[in-house]
Amino acid sequence: MTNASFSPAKLRGVYSPVLTPFNRDLSPSVPRFVKHCQWLLRRGVGLSIFGTNSEANSLSVAEKLGLLDALLAAGLAPERLMPRTGACAPTDTIELTRHAVAAGCAGVLMLPPFYYKGVSDEGLFRSFARVIDGVADARLRIYLYHIPPVSQVGISLKLIERLLEAFPGAIAGVKDSSGDWSNTQAMLREFQPAGFDVFAGSEAILLPTLRAGGAGCITATGNVNPGPIVELFKHWQDADADQRQQSLNATRAVFQKLPMIAAMKAAIAWQSDDSAWSVVRPPLVELDAGQCRQLQAGLRACAFAMPEATSLAK
Amino acid sequence: MTNASFSPAKLRGVYSPVLTPFNRDLSPSVPRFVKHCQWLLRRGVGLSIFGTNSEANSLSVAEKLGLLDALLAAGLAPERLMPRTGACAPTDTIELTRHAVAAGCAGVLMLPPFYYKGVSDEGLFRSFARVIDGVADARLRIYLYHIPPVSQVGISLKLIERLLEAFPGAIAGVKDSSGDWSNTQAMLREFQPAGFDVFAGSEAILLPTLRAGGAGCITATGNVNPGPIVELFKHWQDADADQRQQSLNATRAVFQKLPMIAAMKAAIAWQSDDSAWSVVRPPLVELDAGQCRQLQAGLRACAFAMPEATSLAK
Repeated sequence: MTNASFSPAKLRGVYSPVLTPFNRDLSPSVPRFVKHCQWLLRRGVGLSIFGTNSEANSLSVAEKLGLLDALLAAGLAPERLMPRTGACAPTDTIELTRHAVAAGCAGVLMLPPFYYKGVSDEGLFRSFARVIDGVADARLRIYLYHIPPVSQVGISLKLIERLLEAFPGAIAGVKDSSGDWSNTQAMLREFQPAGFDVFAGSEAILLPTLRAGGAGCITATGNVNPGPIVELFKHWQDADADQRQQSLNATRAVFQKLPMIAAMKAAIAWQSDDSAWSVVRPPLVELDAGQCRQLQAGLRACAFAMPEATSLAK
Repeated sequence: MTNASFSPAKLRGVYSPVLTPFNRDLSPSVPRFVKHCQWLLRRGVGLSIFGTNSEANSLSVAEKLGLLDALLAAGLAPERLMPRTGACAPTDTIELTRHAVAAGCAGVLMLPPFYYKGVSDEGLFRSFARVIDGVADARLRIYLYHIPPVSQVGISLKLIERLLEAFPGAIAGVKDSSGDWSNTQAMLREFQPAGFDVFAGSEAILLPTLRAGGAGCITATGNVNPGPIVELFKHWQDADADQRQQSLNATRAVFQKLPMIAAMKAAIAWQSDDSAWSVVRPPLVELDAGQCRQLQAGLRACAFAMPEATSLAK
């Protein structure tokens, strides 16, 4: 292990799994990706690139390394980056994590290996231990990624407890995308007081998470509605906080009624007048014309806007 | 597309997702892998390397390419190889498939992208189409891999119909690991007559599959019980076929009562007197001492043996 005295600032705030724009030939669109990341940073959103909503499991390791390097080359601050690095293969997870840590990324979001189902906590513990040993860098800060509705392989409270005991420096927090508030509450109660940072998996529970001492949220809709989400984070103790939360929920509901990733990309394509933004990689499918109309009508009813979005394509 | 007149022999028989042996440091053990593949070939079992039971989703693309190349370098016949090449990322699937086809492998077994859940047949169709276009080689023969209990993303009869219509040359057959005999029957009835080869996902339904015109089976326990399974394939029309099937089922049941991959590796470690064979990659966990005793007692009761297995480690 190197640099054992490293002690970074704690991460707090609003992060977003950054959508990955593709060209018509399905290759990643690097310029659009860089511009979108810059746009999010200007709005106060941290960059959890390569998340579920980034279609990152449809990208090869080489493609992910290339996109991360493009952000660094464009001068984006690595301390605002929290790449998701967990893959099925420990060799892939180690490669991507090592690269992210060496680049100075503030933390990494780590999915457990998700192909084999019904695996034991012992096996998952060994998976994380293997990655920590393989990365062998004291700067490593892991945010565990609990998203059983998609991965089907979750991270139990007992596993967190064991990981924290074994690797108190490396295990930094969690993103809870279980959709189960009682689970988020349990994480907040059990681990947040010890400095293990709990991020809500969506802004729909940002206010209760902050009220319970949590660190913020990592949310897909941060891609399209960053301003109002960040405003709630800043003003959660104000009198109008509940009203802000309700307004966020209304906008989110419009996206959630549709295939979410395709809908967010369609919203950016619409707001930036750049139709290539609607491209998704299979197995996802872009919205059809009727779904686009439904999306736009729903968003108009919420007075939705993406300021400066037209600059995304330029 | 190249070599458009290519028309390979149809694949039939018993295939096995070859177990991937690891060293104590969890790197793949190339010599054990080559020896095990040679041992299987001598017993008449085709090599579906990189299957679910190969822990292939715990291997990087580079590790898989290296293992495939090691088999070719050792002189194994590529026409006995059916590597599984389907990954989450189409770029990974294309890279591995292209390499396998160029090496002369008889076919590839292709899992659909399995991270995103609830995806549409349209999205899965586009996934396979993308890979076929990307590989762009008329020698490509795809065996679809239907294993919803693990992948959670299945291959419907309607999707097969559409793929066969669009790519009659490339879509060659299926491995049905649904565990749902009525689904296997439907595939046999709908598509086998047109030359789309249906492989049972385990030897537990080998006899009914062959009686219904199917091509054989691709089965995990081919790794440890190859002889008797191949004998049933050869003698399925004999009077003692049902008795043979029952005997296979009894041996399989011993493995199925335990975590299957770890149990098969423990059986090889035991029979070959090479304890390194018991190593699995996380998130899997090797059998504990009690499970090993249970396994050995169960197998002894079936008069189980792996002839020449002691040569595996040498």
